[in-house]
Amino acid sequence: MHPYTAPLRDIRFALDVLGAEDLYQRLGFKQADRELIDAVLEEAARFAQAVLAPLNAPGDEQGCAFDAATGDVRTPDGFKEAYAQYIEAGWSGLTAPESRGGQGLPESVGAIVKEMIDAANLAWGNYPLLSHGAIVALEHHGEAWQQEVFLKRIIDGSWTGTMCLTEPHCGSDLGLLKTRATANSDGSYSVTGTKIFITGGEHDLTANIVHLVLARLPDAPVGTRGISMFVVPKFMTSREGAVGARNALRCGSIEHKMGIHGSSTCVMNFDGAQGYLIGEPNKGLAAMFTMMNSARLSVGLQGLGLIDRAGQCALAYARDRLQMRALSGTKFPDKPADPIIVHPDVRRMLLTCKALSEGGRLLTLHATTLLDVIAQSKDEAERREADELLGFLTPVVKGMLTEWANECAYHALQVFGGHGYVREWGMEQLARDARITTIYEGTTQIQALDLLGRKIVQLQGAGMRRFLAMIQRFCEKHMHDASMIEFVLPLAEATRQWGELTMEVGKRASANADEVGAAAVDYLATSGYVALAYWWARAVAAADAGNYPEGFKTMKRETARFYFARLLPRIRSHDAAIRSGAATLQALDAGLFDS
Amino acid sequence: MHPYTAPLRDIRFALDVLGAEDLYQRLGFKQADRELIDAVLEEAARFAQAVLAPLNAPGDEQGCAFDAATGDVRTPDGFKEAYAQYIEAGWSGLTAPESRGGQGLPESVGAIVKEMIDAANLAWGNYPLLSHGAIVALEHHGEAWQQEVFLKRIIDGSWTGTMCLTEPHCGSDLGLLKTRATANSDGSYSVTGTKIFITGGEHDLTANIVHLVLARLPDAPVGTRGISMFVVPKFMTSREGAVGARNALRCGSIEHKMGIHGSSTCVMNFDGAQGYLIGEPNKGLAAMFTMMNSARLSVGLQGLGLIDRAGQCALAYARDRLQMRALSGTKFPDKPADPIIVHPDVRRMLLTCKALSEGGRLLTLHATTLLDVIAQSKDEAERREADELLGFLTPVVKGMLTEWANECAYHALQVFGGHGYVREWGMEQLARDARITTIYEGTTQIQALDLLGRKIVQLQGAGMRRFLAMIQRFCEKHMHDASMIEFVLPLAEATRQWGELTMEVGKRASANADEVGAAAVDYLATSGYVALAYWWARAVAAADAGNYPEGFKTMKRETARFYFARLLPRIRSHDAAIRSGAATLQALDAGLFDS
Repeated sequence: MHPYTAPLRDIRFALDVLGAEDLYQRLGFKQADRELIDAVLEEAARFAQAVLAPLNAPGDEQGCAFDAATGDVRTPDGFKEAYAQYIEAGWSGLTAPESRGGQGLPESVGAIVKEMIDAANLAWGNYPLLSHGAIVALEHHGEAWQQEVFLKRIIDGSWTGTMCLTEPHCGSDLGLLKTRATANSDGSYSVTGTKIFITGGEHDLTANIVHLVLARLPDAPVGTRGISMFVVPKFMTSREGAVGARNALRCGSIEHKMGIHGSSTCVMNFDGAQGYLIGEPNKGLAAMFTMMNSARLSVGLQGLGLIDRAGQCALAYARDRLQMRALSGTKFPDKPADPIIVHPDVRRMLLTCKALSEGGRLLTLHATTLLDVIAQSKDEAERREADELLGFLTPVVKGMLTEWANECAYHALQVFGGHGYVREWGMEQLARDARITTIYEGTTQIQALDLLGRKIVQLQGAGMRRFLAMIQRFCEKHMHDASMIEFVLPLAEATRQWGELTMEVGKRASANADEVGAAAVDYLATSGYVALAYWWARAVAAADAGNYPEGFKTMKRETARFYFARLLPRIRSHDAAIRSGAATLQALDAGLFDS
Repeated sequence: MHPYTAPLRDIRFALDVLGAEDLYQRLGFKQADRELIDAVLEEAARFAQAVLAPLNAPGDEQGCAFDAATGDVRTPDGFKEAYAQYIEAGWSGLTAPESRGGQGLPESVGAIVKEMIDAANLAWGNYPLLSHGAIVALEHHGEAWQQEVFLKRIIDGSWTGTMCLTEPHCGSDLGLLKTRATANSDGSYSVTGTKIFITGGEHDLTANIVHLVLARLPDAPVGTRGISMFVVPKFMTSREGAVGARNALRCGSIEHKMGIHGSSTCVMNFDGAQGYLIGEPNKGLAAMFTMMNSARLSVGLQGLGLIDRAGQCALAYARDRLQMRALSGTKFPDKPADPIIVHPDVRRMLLTCKALSEGGRLLTLHATTLLDVIAQSKDEAERREADELLGFLTPVVKGMLTEWANECAYHALQVFGGHGYVREWGMEQLARDARITTIYEGTTQIQALDLLGRKIVQLQGAGMRRFLAMIQRFCEKHMHDASMIEFVLPLAEATRQWGELTMEVGKRASANADEVGAAAVDYLATSGYVALAYWWARAVAAADAGNYPEGFKTMKRETARFYFARLLPRIRSHDAAIRSGAATLQALDAGLFDS
C-alpha cells in the first residue's frame, strides 16, 4: 500500500475554519494553543505514519489467532508493541481530565488523532476506540470507586474497555436481550449470558479488560426499560482496586470476517462473572447511549480516515500509471502514454474522494468541537444548543461518513483497475475494512431512523434548526459577495428544498409511521449532502479570507465547484425517492417477493 | 450461504416476454422448442444447485494453489470433478454448431445456463467463460485446421481456452503491449513475453489449455494497429492435432485476490512458445474484439447471476430474522419481534435487488437473442440491425449489470447486518467476488467510453436509434391502455430526456473531446436506467396479457412501480452531473490535488 501521509495541512485548515483556537481558549483549555496543538498533531502523524501504517497490511494477512484451549486471543505481530508505544506516549489519556491522569486536551483534538490512527490502521484503531467509549460511560455514570478503580486504568491505557451489547438474536433490537445479572450478598452481581460481535473482547495488549455489559436484573421490565449496565473485568477486581483471580468469563471464539482481521471480534461467554452495577438499575440504556454516541462519532472518524487514505492511494497511482492518451490530445508526448489522471472519469473518482474527505473533515470536526462545548462551556444555553446540534449531527456523521468511505474505497479500487483487486496494492483491504463501518455501532438504517424518527420527528428538529440557522447566517453574510455567489445561491436553494422536504416528510409521518422508515435513508443522505455544501462554501470563504498560498485557494475553490456540480445534485434522486413515499415499498406482500 | 434456487419461473417468463420460442423456430433452431428448453434449463438448474453451489464457499476458503517448482495450479477440491460432470453432460458445447460436435442450441439459452452457473459459483464459472470466448474467436477467425484441432476440443470441453491480453504496463491500453512473435521456418511462430491477470491461464481441469495471445510481429506498426493474435497451446500441438511436448510457456505465479479465489488468475510467461497466427497479421485487435464482446456479455451475465443470488439470500434472511417491531405497529404479536422484512428500508434493499435482477434479466437475455439473430437470420437487414443494436447494448449490459451486482451485494450484506460481515453466511464472499466484475473484460469506464465515444458519437448512435424505436413502438401500442399509462408516460418522458441529453452531449463533444470522458459513466448509467424502465413496462404488459397467476401479475406490477418510483429517478442526478460538463473535472491542475 502507498505509505500514509497525515493530511496535516488540511487538518490545520479545518481547525482555522472552525475557529478552534479561540474556542479552546474561551472554553478554558488554556494549554491548547496553536503551538501545542501543532506539536500534538505532528507527533500523532509520526506515530500513525511510522508505527501503525506499516502494520496494516501484515495485520490483515496474519489476523488474530484464537486459542480454543485457553480462550486467549493473540493480536497480529507488532500490535502489542505499537500499543505499548501508544500508552507510553500518553495517547490513551489525551482528552481525559487531568484530575484522572489524562492530559485534558479537547475532544476535537483527540478526534483528529483518531482520524490519523484509523487512516493508518483501522483494525488496530478499534482497540483504543472502545476504551474511549468506556471512559465516557464510566465518567458519566460510574460511582467514585468505579472511576478510581476502572476509569483511571483505562485512561492510562494499562487496561482497555469493551461494549458488550449484541447477542445472537439481538443486534439493532436491544430490547430482546437475555443476559441476566443477579445480586450477590457483597453488593456485586453475577452476570450470565452470551454476547457476540464484541470488538476487542479478548486480546493480548493489556493485563486486564473491562467489559461494560448490558444485562437484565431479575424481575426487570421487558424490553429496553429493563436493561442495566454492569462493569465486568476479565480479572476480578475489588472495590479497592486489587486484581484477583480470572473472572468467570471467556472468549468462546473469534469471527472470521471480511476485513479488519487485526481487530478481534469475539463471542464472549459470561458464566456467573462478577460485576458491578453502573448507574441505576434498569437505566442501562441511557448509560449505553452515552457510550454509543461517543462510539458513533468515532466510527464516523473511521470513515473520514478511510476516505482520506483511499483518495491518497488513488491519487498517487493515477499520477504514476500510464495508460492511453487524453481524449483531448496527448499531454505527455515524451511518455509512452499519459498518466491516467488526465482522464475525466479518473478525475471524477479522485475529486469525489477529495471533496468527501475535506468536506467531511469539517463536518466531523465541527461535531466534535460540540463535545468540547458541552463539557466545558459555562453557559447553560450554549451547552444545550450544542447538545441539540450534536444530537442532529451524530447520525449524519456516522451514517454518511461511513457510506462515503465505502463509496470512496470503491472508487479508489476502481482507479487501480485489476491491480486494485489483488492484495499487493492494499486497495482491496481498504474496501474490505471499510465495509464494517456502515454496520457496527448502529447500521446506516439505524442512524437514519435516529435522525428522522427521533431527532426530526420526535424532537421536532431542534438540532436541525440550529444547523439551518448556521447556514442562514453564512448565506446572509456572503449574499452580496460576488466571489461567493456561485456557492451561496445553490446552497440556499438546496437548504430551502431540504426544509420543505422535512415538512413534507413530517406531515406524512403523522399519517403513517411507515413513511419515516421509507424516507429515512434518503433523508439521511440529503442531510449529509446539504451539510457538506455548507461546509464547502465555508471552506472557500475561509480560504479566500485567510493567509494561504494561491494554489491552495484555487484548489479549495475548484474542489468546491466540483462538489456543487457533481455531488450535491444527488439530492435530486433522493428527493424523488422520498416523495414517492412508503407505498411502493410496502405494497408487495412478503409472500409474493419470490412468487 | 443460503442454498441457491435457480429462478426458473422468472427465466421462463423472460423467454415469454422476448418471444424466444417463436424466434428460435423462425431462425431455424428446430429442436429448440418449449419442451427441450425446459428440459435443458431444469437440468442446468440441478447442476448449478446441487453440484456448483456447494463448492462455492469451500472453493473461496481453499482457493487455488500454485506450485512454484512446476508452475502447476491446483483448483479447489471438487472443481475438477464438477468440470468433468459439466463436459460429460455436454454443457461445454451447448451452443456450438452441431457440425463441430456441439448441440446447436441458441446462444440465448446458453446465456441462461451461464447465469445459473455464475449465481451458484462465480469462480468456477470463469473456466468455461473464457473457453466460450475462445470458441467464438476461433470460429470467426481460425483457419480450417485450427478449428479442427483446437476448436473441436474446446467445444467438447477436453481443453479450455484463455484470453492473453493484459501485460504489467498495459491493461485498458493494449496499444502498449510488448509481447513479440517471430516466424519459424515451419509456418509456426515463437511467442515471447509476459501476460498478467490471465483467468484460467493454468489449472488442473483439462489435459491441455489453449491460449489466445496478443503479440507483435517484427516491424509491426506501433499501437493497436500492430497487434496480431496467436493460438499457443500449453502442450505443443501439430496441424494434424498430435499433442507433443510441453510448450515453452509457464505460469509464473497466481494472484492473491479480494475474491474469486477458486478462479486462477495467472502471470503467464511465454518464452519462445510455439504458436500459430490466427487471422491476418496485425489484425489481431479485430479478432480480440470478437472474443471480447462475447466475454463482455458473459461478465454481464455474471452480474445478473450475482444480483439474483444476493437478492435470494437477503430475502430469506429478512423473512427469518426477528428484530424490532414495524413502525406502523406490531405485525407478528406472537413472535418476540417482527421479521425485518416489515421494515421499509429493508424492503427498499430487497426490492432494489429484485427490480435489478428481473429487469436486468430481460435486458441481458434480449441482448443475447441478438447473437442468435446475427448468427442465424437469413435476412441481411435484420442481421445488420441486430448487430447495431447489440453493439449499443453490450457496454450497457456489461457496465450496468456489474455495477448493479456490486450495489446489490452491498445491500444484501447490509440486510444481514453484522452477520453479513462474517464469513459464515457467505454474503461477504458475494461482495468480494462481485467486485471484480466492474474491472475485468474492460472496466466500467471503458464500457462507458465504448458506449458514448464509439457507439453514440463515432457511429452516430445507430444502435441506440434501434433501441429508441423499440421503446417508441411499445409506447404507441400502450398509449391508450389505462392500466399501462402509469408506466408509459414516465417511460416516454425519461426516453425523451435521454434523447435530448444525447444531443447535448454530442454537441459538446464536438467542441471538446474531454466532454465525452466527463459524461461517459453518468451517460452509461442513464442508458441503463432508461433501458430497464422499458423492460419493466414490457414485463407488466406481458404479465397482464399472459396466463400467469394473479399473485405473479401483482408482483410484477408492484415491482415495476417500485422501479419507476425509486430507481428510475436516479437519472436526475446523472443528468445534472452530465450537464455540468467537463469543466469542474478538468480545472484542477494535477499538481494541486494535494496542495
